[in-house]
Amino acid sequence: MVERVCVIGAGVIGSLFAGHLAQVAEVSVLTRRREHADALEADGLRVTGRSDLQAHVRASSDPDALAPFDLGIVATKAGGLAEAASSLEGRFPDATMMTVLNGLGAEEAVRARGAWPIVSAVTFMSGTKHSDTEVEYILDTETWLGPYEGTPFEQVEEITALIVESGLKAEALPDLLPAQWSKLIFNATVNAVAALTGLRHDRHFAAEELPTDLGHLVHDLVDEGKAVAAAAGVELHDDPWEMNVLATRRGSAHYPSMLEDVEARRETEIDLITGALVREADRHGVPAPLHQALYRLVKAKEASW
Amino acid sequence: MVERVCVIGAGVIGSLFAGHLAQVAEVSVLTRRREHADALEADGLRVTGRSDLQAHVRASSDPDALAPFDLGIVATKAGGLAEAASSLEGRFPDATMMTVLNGLGAEEAVRARGAWPIVSAVTFMSGTKHSDTEVEYILDTETWLGPYEGTPFEQVEEITALIVESGLKAEALPDLLPAQWSKLIFNATVNAVAALTGLRHDRHFAAEELPTDLGHLVHDLVDEGKAVAAAAGVELHDDPWEMNVLATRRGSAHYPSMLEDVEARRETEIDLITGALVREADRHGVPAPLHQALYRLVKAKEASW
Repeated sequence: MVERVCVIGAGVIGSLFAGHLAQVAEVSVLTRRREHADALEADGLRVTGRSDLQAHVRASSDPDALAPFDLGIVATKAGGLAEAASSLEGRFPDATMMTVLNGLGAEEAVRARGAWPIVSAVTFMSGTKHSDTEVEYILDTETWLGPYEGTPFEQVEEITALIVESGLKAEALPDLLPAQWSKLIFNATVNAVAALTGLRHDRHFAAEELPTDLGHLVHDLVDEGKAVAAAAGVELHDDPWEMNVLATRRGSAHYPSMLEDVEARRETEIDLITGALVREADRHGVPAPLHQALYRLVKAKEASW
Repeated sequence: MVERVCVIGAGVIGSLFAGHLAQVAEVSVLTRRREHADALEADGLRVTGRSDLQAHVRASSDPDALAPFDLGIVATKAGGLAEAASSLEGRFPDATMMTVLNGLGAEEAVRARGAWPIVSAVTFMSGTKHSDTEVEYILDTETWLGPYEGTPFEQVEEITALIVESGLKAEALPDLLPAQWSKLIFNATVNAVAALTGLRHDRHFAAEELPTDLGHLVHDLVDEGKAVAAAAGVELHDDPWEMNVLATRRGSAHYPSMLEDVEARRETEIDLITGALVREADRHGVPAPLHQALYRLVKAKEASW
């Protein structure tokens, strides 16, 4: 039975999980900054937008101060994963850990620090953090969960049911890799293009009328990614080009997190997203010159600050 | 004899020509804005930096108010070329016109408006305009001139000599196309990369140590451009990669004009620079996927404003 959940990393995604799950479970939050934990302890966590919730949560920046939990949701940014995983090492032996980061390889980073059963997840929901204690729920799209290295599927289904009960959308898949790769290709394409052009994920990403239209480049990037997936033996869950077209037809254009990072002059997740795709291309001997080009451009943009 | 020069378009390059040539010839300036002409008439033109000059020039925004001239130097930005050429139509029958724009095709645009002898030029000098009447001369690199459609080479040499006498660096070449293509490939590469990354033309453009280093992309872009030149039957005057490496070793990093345009959210010259290269690639059936990608990214960046 999953009755106690700890969210590790309370950015947008972590806060959305914490705020919702607190309606159906005991929720604690492990934060990086002490002030963040203090604010959550004092004020709780408010969710606005698609949900309207006020959640009571326990919070600490010290893993030793956390009560035991059944499920740990690792929802840091790529740059915070190593630190978060090492803070869990040697603790919470009865917990199951669920990773819900962009890119590939988060499960391996957690496994390197302990023998917990692991559940893989990718999420398509999005939001905006207005403060340490308030998050706006914007896109109420699904989170997909799957077993990692022999975790029983029943356990994945139980966690999925809890997330659905909390008011979020979720689906359990026997094999998450096809979905992770669909999201990886989608993310590598949309995030890097948004970061370089300054465009939100809007209709330009699907436009293929004029030869200079951006949609041609987006299509070529998706095709490159699909060739890498095929070489890696992965059959995609969703076609990233269709994901792109559908997303750009939504009412309001999504603000890709890498564009937010670039505008704030923060280090981006490019190494874990596009970098993961380019490394897979190398490993399988498939060319990925356009993703390689965008990878170098975003790294150079970071170097310009 | 070239005794009267008219500079058409007084941006950085036009102002550098006007300020220097006024030391050895009668110089008039045709401006787009009337206030610009009024300021030049009232205050003259000041050149600082590598030169220290105060020039007396005549100026007008009305072509009918200009005195006849022997040499017209068309130095507009790409976006102002059509308007400038049409303002010359039916006038100044005894003049020779010299074009000194980025990209390819400026000569054809002038030829479409009149039968003047035409001299082609590319310039590598650079500067910064501080006001309508003050320009700072920064890179004192050469301007190369060549005949266009049967203009006698002696005439090219005479104009070159006048430019040298005025204090600028210039060289007459029997065939300018190899130099124009060298600059086109260099410009398409450096300007687009700078516009997308926010980097000045600094050491990152030549770095090829780590796999994610920007120099790899710059090298690939140059190689793509060289393949297009080869398909077009052009033997390059200079290797654009060597031009890139040399330029990044200079003391202070050059501020590419397309980066200035992007920062000011002005329309860039991408259509005439990268666009020209991509159109040549199409015409000769050579692939140029990386230049095509950068072309679409810069157009998308313009669309984000």
